[in-house]
Amino acid sequence: MKEIFIIGVGLIGGSMANDMRRIYSESKISGIDNKAEHLSRAIELGIIDEAASMADIRRADLVILAIPVDSTVEILPQILDRIGDEALVIDVGSTKEDICEVVKDHPKRRNFLATHPIAGTEFSGPEAAIEGLFRGKTNIICEVEETAFKLQEAALDIFRELGMRIRYMKPKAHDRHIAYVSHLSHISSFMLGKTVIEKEKNERDIFDMAGSGFESTVRLAKSSPDMWTPIFRQNKTNVIETLNEYICNLENFKKLMEQEDFDGVYSEMKNTNYIKKILKGIE
Amino acid sequence: MKEIFIIGVGLIGGSMANDMRRIYSESKISGIDNKAEHLSRAIELGIIDEAASMADIRRADLVILAIPVDSTVEILPQILDRIGDEALVIDVGSTKEDICEVVKDHPKRRNFLATHPIAGTEFSGPEAAIEGLFRGKTNIICEVEETAFKLQEAALDIFRELGMRIRYMKPKAHDRHIAYVSHLSHISSFMLGKTVIEKEKNERDIFDMAGSGFESTVRLAKSSPDMWTPIFRQNKTNVIETLNEYICNLENFKKLMEQEDFDGVYSEMKNTNYIKKILKGIE
Repeated sequence: MKEIFIIGVGLIGGSMANDMRRIYSESKISGIDNKAEHLSRAIELGIIDEAASMADIRRADLVILAIPVDSTVEILPQILDRIGDEALVIDVGSTKEDICEVVKDHPKRRNFLATHPIAGTEFSGPEAAIEGLFRGKTNIICEVEETAFKLQEAALDIFRELGMRIRYMKPKAHDRHIAYVSHLSHISSFMLGKTVIEKEKNERDIFDMAGSGFESTVRLAKSSPDMWTPIFRQNKTNVIETLNEYICNLENFKKLMEQEDFDGVYSEMKNTNYIKKILKGIE
Repeated sequence: MKEIFIIGVGLIGGSMANDMRRIYSESKISGIDNKAEHLSRAIELGIIDEAASMADIRRADLVILAIPVDSTVEILPQILDRIGDEALVIDVGSTKEDICEVVKDHPKRRNFLATHPIAGTEFSGPEAAIEGLFRGKTNIICEVEETAFKLQEAALDIFRELGMRIRYMKPKAHDRHIAYVSHLSHISSFMLGKTVIEKEKNERDIFDMAGSGFESTVRLAKSSPDMWTPIFRQNKTNVIETLNEYICNLENFKKLMEQEDFDGVYSEMKNTNYIKKILKGIE
């Protein structure tokens, strides 16, 4: 890995670059980003060695694509057009179906590995990049069999060095499950934030009365709309399904309250307490 | 404060007892709880000195009532019936209107102070009690003018020692605002947990795919139904109103997605990002 290119030097790309620096200390790390200030900031922070352009991609041994998923769909084929025969291209987007679809007939499909590292924070930009972000986290790999053996192996070496555990899924299954465990959480958080902001015009009152519970449930409402709008667009069908079910559960809870069926309210909560056991696996 | 009685030796009562021990090292701390195992556990953990019964309350200088709010409404008048003329009784319940209402004509009303410390975790029972839980947190005091001057002063001394900042509100306003910043968060979290559990029968898949974002949004779904059912019952009207607005915002978000209005989806998130600024005040 002499030449590593990071496309999108934000939270995920920047954190990847930090880890690549540690693993491949001899490598040159170049950054590509449509925001010039992100590139100069990433150089200042020592995340990348230099700024590059798409024309330089032909020199790449490894390309990590960490940009919004609509841009990935647009840029990924262009990257595959430009790379050499031995190069490995990895994307880290939060959707997988459209991304795999757009390159399925590309002559360089075997140079590409579709992944989704389940890691991140609610912050964005190169300043948000941290070391060890991926340690102990899950990386979901899709359509592994479409990637050349040698490049599968190279990618797995990288993920092992990052400290990630690997799960293999089909793109369709990935997008359906992730809608529940990630995309819906973001919408519930954004809409909770909206509901409270609309009501509580006096913001001083909000934070005087709000505790750590509120902070925890609305944390994701700080997330970047630039990143999330394309995710919701690409995963529209699944996300709408999760929203229907979520709204239906909320309506049901409300109905129980309206009917003063507080045994029902109790059961709803008691049954969901089971989440404790599940969350033990995450913490 | 020679004799302190803690009624309900769980997360809040137990944490209060821990702080009382530090502030009033000479005091005897007695516990009353309808769960015998909570009392013996609290004694083992050094949270209380001994178990007591309602008949002993007459000796109390300070009574802290930290039980579910339906029990508070039932027990508070009985406590006021039994205490001496100089005793201070404080409740720490998450609703205030019904609690203030039930004692408004009690001859010992002036011995009572209605408070809501905005502090806690999703855990419960004496094991959940921690030191310093209240430091830097807000305590909302309701109807302060109904409490005797000398006892107001004694209570404020305690809260200052606990490191709390004080806000004064009317019970009705407290219940309306807290429905938004606390009660709704709990329901959104419980129903999010329910939606995911229903869908993801294979729990191993949930926690392999779920990241810290999901963990954060469903954290409150671990909360105690015994504590929360009576809160929702007492604050029914306000909570139903917040649920209506929350569901309406979710429906609107879904409609934007169905209409493929992703500029609209972007704006919804962008406008709510403003929550960052508000949350700075909480963190």
